[in-house]
Order: sequence, then structure tokens, then C-alpha cells
Amino acid sequence: MIDLRSDTSTRPTVAMRQAMAEAEVGDDVYGEDPTVLRLQELAAKTVGKEAAIWVPTGTMGNLSAVLAHCYERGSEVIVGDQSHVYQYEAGGMSGLGGVAFNVVPTQRNGELALEDLMEAVRPDDQHCARTALICLENTHNRCGGTALSLEYMRKVKTFADAKGLPVHLDGARVFNAAVSLGVHVSAVTDLVTSVQFCLSKGLGAPAGSIVAGPKPIIDRVHRLRKMLGGGMRQVGVLAAPGLLALTEMSKRLEEDHRNAQHLAKGLASLPDVDIDLDLVHSNIVTFRLRHSSASAVYGLVKGLQGRNVLALPFRAGVRLVTHNDVSFKDCQVALDAIKDVLESMRDNTTYTNGSGTDETFAPTGYQ
Amino acid sequence: MIDLRSDTSTRPTVAMRQAMAEAEVGDDVYGEDPTVLRLQELAAKTVGKEAAIWVPTGTMGNLSAVLAHCYERGSEVIVGDQSHVYQYEAGGMSGLGGVAFNVVPTQRNGELALEDLMEAVRPDDQHCARTALICLENTHNRCGGTALSLEYMRKVKTFADAKGLPVHLDGARVFNAAVSLGVHVSAVTDLVTSVQFCLSKGLGAPAGSIVAGPKPIIDRVHRLRKMLGGGMRQVGVLAAPGLLALTEMSKRLEEDHRNAQHLAKGLASLPDVDIDLDLVHSNIVTFRLRHSSASAVYGLVKGLQGRNVLALPFRAGVRLVTHNDVSFKDCQVALDAIKDVLESMRDNTTYTNGSGTDETFAPTGYQ
Amino acid sequence: MIDLRSDTSTRPTVAMRQAMAEAEVGDDVYGEDPTVLRLQELAAKTVGKEAAIWVPTGTMGNLSAVLAHCYERGSEVIVGDQSHVYQYEAGGMSGLGGVAFNVVPTQRNGELALEDLMEAVRPDDQHCARTALICLENTHNRCGGTALSLEYMRKVKTFADAKGLPVHLDGARVFNAAVSLGVHVSAVTDLVTSVQFCLSKGLGAPAGSIVAGPKPIIDRVHRLRKMLGGGMRQVGVLAAPGLLALTEMSKRLEEDHRNAQHLAKGLASLPDVDIDLDLVHSNIVTFRLRHSSASAVYGLVKGLQGRNVLALPFRAGVRLVTHNDVSFKDCQVALDAIKDVLESMRDNTTYTNGSGTDETFAPTGYQ
Amino acid sequence: MIDLRSDTSTRPTVAMRQAMAEAEVGDDVYGEDPTVLRLQELAAKTVGKEAAIWVPTGTMGNLSAVLAHCYERGSEVIVGDQSHVYQYEAGGMSGLGGVAFNVVPTQRNGELALEDLMEAVRPDDQHCARTALICLENTHNRCGGTALSLEYMRKVKTFADAKGLPVHLDGARVFNAAVSLGVHVSAVTDLVTSVQFCLSKGLGAPAGSIVAGPKPIIDRVHRLRKMLGGGMRQVGVLAAPGLLALTEMSKRLEEDHRNAQHLAKGLASLPDVDIDLDLVHSNIVTFRLRHSSASAVYGLVKGLQGRNVLALPFRAGVRLVTHNDVSFKDCQVALDAIKDVLESMRDNTTYTNGSGTDETFAPTGYQ
Repeated sequence: MIDLRSDTSTRPTVAMRQAMAEAEVGDDVYGEDPTVLRLQELAAKTVGKEAAIWVPTGTMGNLSAVLAHCYERGSEVIVGDQSHVYQYEAGGMSGLGGVAFNVVPTQRNGELALEDLMEAVRPDDQHCARTALICLENTHNRCGGTALSLEYMRKVKTFADAKGLPVHLDGARVFNAAVSLGVHVSAVTDLVTSVQFCLSKGLGAPAGSIVAGPKPIIDRVHRLRKMLGGGMRQVGVLAAPGLLALTEMSKRLEEDHRNAQHLAKGLASLPDVDIDLDLVHSNIVTFRLRHSSASAVYGLVKGLQGRNVLALPFRAGVRLVTHNDVSFKDCQVALDAIKDVLESMRDNTTYTNGSGTDETFAPTGYQ
Repeated sequence: MIDLRSDTSTRPTVAMRQAMAEAEVGDDVYGEDPTVLRLQELAAKTVGKEAAIWVPTGTMGNLSAVLAHCYERGSEVIVGDQSHVYQYEAGGMSGLGGVAFNVVPTQRNGELALEDLMEAVRPDDQHCARTALICLENTHNRCGGTALSLEYMRKVKTFADAKGLPVHLDGARVFNAAVSLGVHVSAVTDLVTSVQFCLSKGLGAPAGSIVAGPKPIIDRVHRLRKMLGGGMRQVGVLAAPGLLALTEMSKRLEEDHRNAQHLAKGLASLPDVDIDLDLVHSNIVTFRLRHSSASAVYGLVKGLQGRNVLALPFRAGVRLVTHNDVSFKDCQVALDAIKDVLESMRDNTTYTNGSGTDETFAPTGYQ
Repeated sequence: MIDLRSDTSTRPTVAMRQAMAEAEVGDDVYGEDPTVLRLQELAAKTVGKEAAIWVPTGTMGNLSAVLAHCYERGSEVIVGDQSHVYQYEAGGMSGLGGVAFNVVPTQRNGELALEDLMEAVRPDDQHCARTALICLENTHNRCGGTALSLEYMRKVKTFADAKGLPVHLDGARVFNAAVSLGVHVSAVTDLVTSVQFCLSKGLGAPAGSIVAGPKPIIDRVHRLRKMLGGGMRQVGVLAAPGLLALTEMSKRLEEDHRNAQHLAKGLASLPDVDIDLDLVHSNIVTFRLRHSSASAVYGLVKGLQGRNVLALPFRAGVRLVTHNDVSFKDCQVALDAIKDVLESMRDNTTYTNGSGTDETFAPTGYQ
Repeated sequence: MIDLRSDTSTRPTVAMRQAMAEAEVGDDVYGEDPTVLRLQELAAKTVGKEAAIWVPTGTMGNLSAVLAHCYERGSEVIVGDQSHVYQYEAGGMSGLGGVAFNVVPTQRNGELALEDLMEAVRPDDQHCARTALICLENTHNRCGGTALSLEYMRKVKTFADAKGLPVHLDGARVFNAAVSLGVHVSAVTDLVTSVQFCLSKGLGAPAGSIVAGPKPIIDRVHRLRKMLGGGMRQVGVLAAPGLLALTEMSKRLEEDHRNAQHLAKGLASLPDVDIDLDLVHSNIVTFRLRHSSASAVYGLVKGLQGRNVLALPFRAGVRLVTHNDVSFKDCQVALDAIKDVLESMRDNTTYTNGSGTDETFAPTGYQ
């Protein structure tokens, strides 16, 4: 199987498995796991923050960070309408944390327009929630892995600083962003107050994320982690592959991006495919089918599955994600399969008259 | 003073004051206040619902109704980005109730586009909050008192029914909507599951709102009212003027609408004024100033105040609201004052070069 | 009917009704109601606090005050297991505010033992909620109207100060406490950080309570009041009787206490009655029936109802509360009725063999 | 180091490390991790429940299970005042889930008295939170590892069934309970609606817990796990040692109990030690020091540390816990060290005059 649905499906490497087996561990609830401590220290240093903490998932990382910033009842967080925190984290910031969403449109490239941010910040008035945080996402999942430019992020930082607002970055794939922008990851994270990034996904660890930021925020995240049920015991067994993710795997993301470019260009050459190459920035490739109904997407994904290629129906189109378990050759095989399936579909009367409903494609949520 | 800022400033009539003084009362926490019981019965009947309950404010009415529908942790409510519940109720649905906002754009006439509603409903998936309710607003405050048509509301009802979703109406001014549409109020409320409407505002009671809907929802609202601290004692003293609001005052809203039309047409004849007469549906008139900075709005409002006319800076423009304490003659006086001030401003260099900031106008929140 | 169930059933006096009818009002959401402003100023002065705010109910007063102190997610409040805030306010502090209850036993006289408070305060540790507030109640409802002594309250204050914890007083009947202790009410309220007291109950206003405390706390209460839906409009119509409650009615509580003593002593002389006269401190009298089942209490209450006397089944006994609508003569009538009913019950076989269940008496919740 | 502070400090065995390295994995967020699926199936079968789900920690297991039962806003859970969920889980049920604590005293043996449960269940009344769940703990941590008898649990079940209330068991150490009672674990779990048990602690897995119960509850737990941030990716690497915990390690708990008995009896023979042998039911031994101040406990723990024995100050005494990393010989060494230290302390004037404060010992929270 060539699994192009998401980089969340990466399996631990041989080195990671060995690291797990040999990890020096302790009870991390009491700060006694040396491997976790080492990872946290390295992570903070890597992203240029005062402190860092390991959390079981990106969702817990974003949730605990947002709750740490919005610690006062009646706070709200400004989020993009296509952001992962708003779309795919079960509304937990509101549902568990009582933080209201203040939603602004996400631009096609993943940015939140400065004018929209300006209008979104609420006055200090009893009728309004307290605007306490701006949340960005880089690279941006639902926008197809687009990288926010440093220039844009600097503008947001300047605005936020002027308003006295912190900025949290959902940097689940911030290492992909750094590679895409051709900078060290800290060049990105320097422009935000706090960041969450995943050791799983492109970095290949079996599980785990990091939240990094100022020490008072990380101290609050620490308590929230316990409250949420994320204070695990001998979790050095996950920190060990996490260390490899951070030190070794982050170096190889360029390959995933090259593979994604290859896929994207191949797709662009197909007559039925509608793809915007300018928005393929990292390891995610999204495209739509021209002149076709929703059921065509469904047909394509089904057809690919029959050829051992897994793709994801995604926002009325299809998503392909490259990662450590997908080689250049796999991408070529996938491209050929797509071409085949589309051709066979063209001969099929249901192709343009499909009755697929929105529901068929709605749930995705792949990080 | 001619107070055109909001109909929330209406003072109780002489008849209302007398009704308060003579009200038959009991402890309403124990359902022993006969005046409250009478009001609730009449209110339910008037809007064609199984049950109704008095609450101290419209905010508590909307909050308790939304929480009653979204009683399960992890629920969300679909709201318009310009809706009162999202903009001016302090985020309480999230902050106190843990209900996430699912925000769709509000059209200029107060509608939420059907396509947007369709896309907003989330799939039944662990990544997503549970979509549990659609919330409409009629008339629509921030859209300038626009009335949603019955045809539109019927479409939303059909969609919601198909999805198994209830619809709650923030009908703070639903009697204005009925007058504007030329129908009995129940023609509007028949198209939603539950409704909140204010006895204050245009109906002139000193305070109080009604939530009406199916009995199981109203039973939940009852418990939530107690939990929120809205279970008052001998509150027949407020229900008594509320009865007059419902029976007498609802008949005179047409006059407010005529006055608003007079104001609107007068404004349209002024060269500096930018107003869309098609969107003046009820007792609210909003307009902008052409070719002028934000500070011009501020200057106008200040100038009017000096002439004993109160207007409200509102969404980069000005808002005027007619109500029981504003006569046709008052409207004429206000029009003349506006004309005067705008003329005097035209001679003033700061008019087009004002340094007024967004902040000056941001907080309004008038219901 | 002689209603001895609760002082919440007091009806507004003639003077109060006239005050309502003549009240000068404005929109209090915008701080423009002069009567409310006057009441708030007087209330703050009376209890010796920096600021005060009117709220619709005692429940909202306690809820908003506790949430103002416990503004940070993960906070807890120390409460007595028999306290009104824990027993009868629908768990709203947790359910809406996410504040955890830290529960200590209530002593028979309404005190929380100092040793219990000491043990209850949690260490600053990730495993624990943050202890943020101690809540006392004076007079104490479920303990039968007992007044906490100034000496006891001073000890709690000393302890709380040492721990850096504020103290909130549920002073729903703090004017009764002051009368019972023979001091000005400010002698009591000086010993706590914030206080809620009711203008209804013994003070006879139809509805409304005051929260008083330091300005930053009252500012937070103000915002919370709006969020909870307690920001009412021309509510001077309730503040006006509230002013009379504060200035006039507070002077007559001594009469209620005398009547309660008369009731208590009369009851103590009845062979079937078990009553602790040392715990009758204010306007509440509670007693149990000797050698009898729960159904005996039920029988007594039923029997009294037949004689136009309303009493409340309460914690396996009966509660009688004196107030402005109950005269000395009414108390005498009630005593005679109780004697009669108990005598007639003694001849009744079901008296000692009743099958009344706990459920029969459980729900009371009268404030 | 002989670490007797807690069985949470157990390190993964060689077999577990190998299992991690070789685990067959997939993305468990999408139910594609075969090892997790196998573990969940086995776990459900072992405790005789319809369904089971892996969660990262016991705290998340209890939190998500309690929230699943108390899914409606305004619910409360009955807990013991010494229970882990109330004392050591950061108040998360209230702070994140809005569930109110309804607290009853815990008896010395870990039971909640039936009379207390009866009185705790609230009537269906607007003044009260909705009682939605009873929570037991077996074995009971703060009571020193006591096992609740099947007879007691059966009584609670009968009562709960009659009231229509589910029962959740915090069975962090329910396998120890089963060993202590001499029954299969399902004999215990049959008497509750849902159970959480830890694969870490005595069972030795590096991390992870199981929640088991009826499918609708586990489905809700599944969604809550995602919302809380507990939906991990290739977490088969933790499920693999979890399988060994369940199948292999559960068999060896008897040894820990024997070692604990040996420790307890040895301690009972020391003149300074106050220990109740009747309450040593499993792998936890707690004792106090006679005639000594709090600082004596502190002195003992310090002294032991100097002799490479780690013990835990615990509720004004000391706690020792046996587990897989502690041999019979280790226990003997520990006993000798305790004897030594106590003897050397007896010659020390500070022993009985210590100035140690409660604070020194307060934070423990070891699971």
C-alpha cells in the first residue's frame, strides 16, 4: 500500500524502535524521566524558546497552550475559519476550556488578513468576550500545506504586539514550513509567543508533540497537561524516538517536498485535474477534478484504493501527502494510477452524473 | 433629550407604572406568582408555542435557550458573524456553557446563506464538535433592523428539519419583524423551534424577556434560569408591565416604523449621507457619511448631542432607533439637527482629515 | 394564609409599590439608571466596601462573586457541606464556571472548623486544583439561621489572610446576622473580602441582591452579570424598593427575631417537639418530632396547611421563618395550630408507623 | 535505589521493551493500529465489559468516563472526600467538564457509607445539580491500598440500580483488588457500570490505561479522548507492553502483596511505628510515627534517602509501595534502614521538637 492520505500514518523507523527499546526512563509526572527532559531542553533550544514540554498529541498541545494564554474565564481566541484548531479539534477549546472562537476568514494561502484581525479584536466592553490570543497555522493543513511567509508573520507580530496580544502558532508541521521558506525553524517561531509542533507526522515519531514558549506559559501548560490527563509515566519511551524525529528526521523533509512537487507537476499535466501549483509549498498536494461531480472524487479514491494507493477526499477534491514511508518511486506509481483511474472513469457514464453527496466527503480531519 | 441610540432606553409608561404598583405577586421561584404565570401563558399562546418562561434579559433568554438545545458537552451552535448572540453577549455560550461557535457570514439583509449553512453542519466525527442548533436573528440588529422573510425562514426550517437540527430565533425584536412583514408574530415563530423576545426595547417594559418553545426545552430553560441566577422572587411586578408590553405596546410598533421611514427618507435627501433605503425594514435606521473619515461620524454624534439628540456610532456609521419615547416631531427635530451639524462640519477642516481611531466607534453593543 | 415557609415569600409593602411606580429610571446596562446608582452607592457604604452592584438574585450574586474571585481556570472554592452555595444553587459554580467545590463539614452552628479549613487548602501542585477562595454563610440557612460570631469570622480572616486567600460571604441574611449579634452590619462585612446580601427575604424587596467588595472584584462581577444575562434595563423600578429595603426594612428585623423566639419557646414546651433553643439566633426556627417517622413531619405540615399555616419540611424536621408578613399574633395562631395538629396526630396510628420516604421531604431549597 | 514511593515508578521489563520495538502499528486515531485493537478487545473481555478503549493516563480515563456519564450540563458526581478523582486529578471534572463534586466522607477502609450515599443523591429540583454518577475506588489509594469487598460493592450496585444511577470504578489498581479479594478481576468489575484501570503502576507498562464499559459510554469516551487530546497515532508501541501488563504482569501481583505484608509486619514490631495491619490489603503500606511531630516524618524520609531507600511522606505519615522493581530482599533492606534511622532519630533532640509544617508533606499526589 502506498498511503498518501496523511503523514500521520508514518511508522517509526528502525532507529526509533531501537531507541524506544533502550530508552532511559523515569516517572515523568515527577520530572524524573531523563529522556523527556533531554528532549524538552533540545526542543526549546531548537525553536528558540525559554521552555518546552512534551504532550501526547498536537491537539493537546494546541488546547493546553490556548488555555494557558486564555486562562481567564470569558476569553476568546482569534482563529481562521479553515484552521485545524477550529475545524478538527472537536471544539475542545470551547467545550472544555470555555474559550470562545472569534473566527476570521482564512485566505487561500493560509493567511488571516490583517484588516480582518484588526476588526476582530474586541473592545474592552461588558458586551464582549475578552480577546486574549491570535492563533496562526504554519504550514496550513486545510489550505494544502501552504507556508506563511516570514514577512506576513512579522506583520501579525507587529499588530499583536501593538494590541498586547500573544500569538500562538499551530506549527504541527512548522518544520515543513521552515524547509519551504528555506530558513531555520527558529526564524519562524521567533515571530510567535508560543508554538506547538508534532514529532509525529513528517518527523515520523509514533506519537507526541512539543509546546514551547515563555516559562510562565509552559508552567501553565504543565498543569493543564495533568488536568487533561496527559501526564504520562515512563514516557521516555516516546521521547526517545522524538529525539530522533527532531534531530534526524527534520533533515529529510526536503525530500518529501520534492516528491510533492513531482506529484503536483504530474497532476497538472492531466487534462481532468485542476491544481494550483503556486499553492503547493510543502509535502501536501491537493487538487480538484474539472467538470465533475462530487462522486467523481469518490470514484477516483475508490479506484486508487483498488490499485493499492490511498488518497484522501478533501474539501471537494483529493489530498495526497508525502512522508517518510513514501518514496519517489511510490509517487510515480501513484501518478500512473491516478492517470489510469481518471481515464477509465472518463468512459464511465456515472462519472459526470454521480449522485455522491457532500456527506461522503465531509469527515476527514486528517491532521 | 431625544434618545435615538436604542429602543432599550424606553421608559415604562404610566399604565405600566400603575400595573407594577398593583401587581398581584408571589414567589415565582416556586411558581406562585400569578402575574408571571398569566404572562407566560399569554406569551406562549401569542407565539404559538407549547410553553413559555419569563427571564430577566434577552441575553439570559438566548443563553438559556441555546444551552437547553446544546445540553450535551461538545456541542456547537451555528451563528452569523454579525449576530447579537455572537457579537454582544460576552461569549457566554462558550464561556459559561462550553458551546462552540460555528460561525458563518451574515448577509447584508441578516440572512445566513443556505449554502453556508449546508457547509457548516459538521459530520458525526470525533474530530468535530456536534452541530446541535442553528440560530437566526429577526429583526437583525447589526444589519440595521432587517426582517428575514418568511420564505427565507421556511427554507432554513426545511434544511434544519432534514438535518434533524432545531432552530432558535433571537427574536429580541420579533414583533417588529412581524409588523414589517405584515403578518401575525406566530407566522414568524411557527418557523423556528424556540424563540426569545424582549418585553423591553420596542415593547417598552422596564425589563424582561420571554423564551418560548416545546415544553422539554422550556423545562431545561427553567433549570438553567435558576442556575444562572435568574430565578427571581415577586417578579410579578415586572410581569405586570410585561403583560401591557405584549397586549398593548405591540400594537403601536407600526408608528415606530413609519417614523423610521421618515427619518430614512429625510437622510437620503442629504448629500453627505450614504443610506440604503431597501434595508430600512423596521425601527432602525443606519447610515454612513460619504467621503469622510471615522472622525466625521464622531463629530456628527458629538454635534447632535449638543443639540439634545442622541445617536449611536455604529459599524463605521451612525444608528438611529425609533421607539415609544420618540414622536414624529422628535424625528423631524433630529433630521433638522443632522442637517445642521453636517453643514457646519462641511466648513470644518478636521472633517475630512480627522484622526478618529477605530476604537472610538468600536464598542456599542446596544441591543 | 400565614406563610412561615420562608422569608422569600414577603410581598412588597405599600411604600415599595409606590416607590416602583415613581422610580426615576434609565438604561442600567449603560449605567444610566439613577436609582440603581443611588442604591449601589448606599449599599457599598452600608457594608463598608469600595464598590457594590445590584444583581437580580442572590444566586447570581454568589455565582458572579465566586467566579470573579476564581477567575482562573482550574480554581476551587472551599465551601461548607451544608452551605446554600453548595446545596441549593444548582452546582452553577462548577456547571457554568468550572470552579471545583472543596467541601468541608459544616458545624451545627454554621461554622467551618479552622482545622478543616487548614487541611482543605491545597498545595501548589499540578495534581490539585488551585484553592482560590473561602466561602462563609451568615446567617446560615441550613443550620437554622445561626449567626457566625465576629470572633469566629475574625479567626477565619486571619487564617485566610495568612494564606493569601479572599473570603466571600453569602450574606443573603447578613442583616439578620447583624441584628442577632447586636452590631452594625459593617462589623460583620469588614471581616470578609466580598459579600452578597439579598434585598428580598427579610428586607422585603420583591427581588434583587447586592454584591459588594473591592472595585476590581465588582468590575469583574459587572462583566459576569452581563455574561450571565443579569444586565437589566430600567431596573430602577426594582432598585427603588431595594432602597427602602436597605434603609427602612433593615430596622425592623428585630421584630422577626422576637417572633421567632416566641415560636421557639412555645415549641419547646410541646412534649413531641425536639428543638435546640441555643441555635435559634435569628428569624428561622427549626425543630424535629420526637419518636416519630418521617411521615409524621409530613402529616404535621399537611395538617397545618388545613389550618391555613404554611410550614416547610426541612432536613427531617420542620422549618418556620418569620418575616414582614407575619405578625406576633400570626405566630401565636401558628403555635396553637401546631399543638392541635400534633395532638390529633397522637391519636392516629399512622403517626409512628408512617411510610413516608426521604424523598417526600428532600426537595426544599427555600432560601 | 530502592524506590518504595509508588508503583508508578515501575520501569518497563525487557520483554516490554522488546514488544515496543517489534509492535505492529497503524494510526490509532483512525482505528488502524492492530496492537491497540487487540489490547482493547482483550481488556474488555478481561473485565467483562462490552467495549474498552486505551487512554494515555488514568486521569484521562477517569475524566473521560465521568464526563461520558455526566454528559449533560449541570450534572454532578458523588465522590469520596479521600478519593483520587477528587484529591489528585486537578479538579478537572469540574474545571474542564463542569461536573460538580458531591462529596461524601470516605471511611477508613475506602468505603462510602450507604447512608451517606442515600443522603447525597439530590432530588430532581431546580435548586440542585443533577446527580448522575457514583464513583468508587478499588483499591483505595489514600486509604492505603484497601480493597473494597464484593459484598460492599454489591450493596452500592443495588442502591445505584434502584436510583437509576451508574457507578464508575476508579480501578487504577483493580487487579490488586482482585488479588487481595482472591477473585477474578471481572468479579469486581461486574459490579460497576464502567471501570478505569492502569496498565502502568503494578502492571508495569510504561504508560496507559483502559476504560471499559457499555459501548455507548465507550463511544463517548472515544470522542472525549480526542477532544482532550488523547488520540495518539502509532500508539501500538504502548499497547504492546500494555498487552504484557495485562496478560503476564497481572499474575505476579501476589508477590507484591506478600512483600507488603512482610514490610507491614516488620514495621509493626518497631516501637515508634503506628500501623493498622488490618488495613494493609494490597501492595501499599502506610504508617505513622508515635509521639512525634511532622518533622519526624520528614526526618525519617530524609534519613532513608541517605540509605538509598525512597519513601513518601503521606497524610502525616509515610507510605511504602511494593512493585515489580522491588524484591523481597529490597524490602528487608528497607526495613533495616527504617529501624536504623528511627533509632538514630531517637537520640536527636529535634526528633520530638521538630518545626516541620504541614506544608512540607502536603503535596504528594502519587497515584
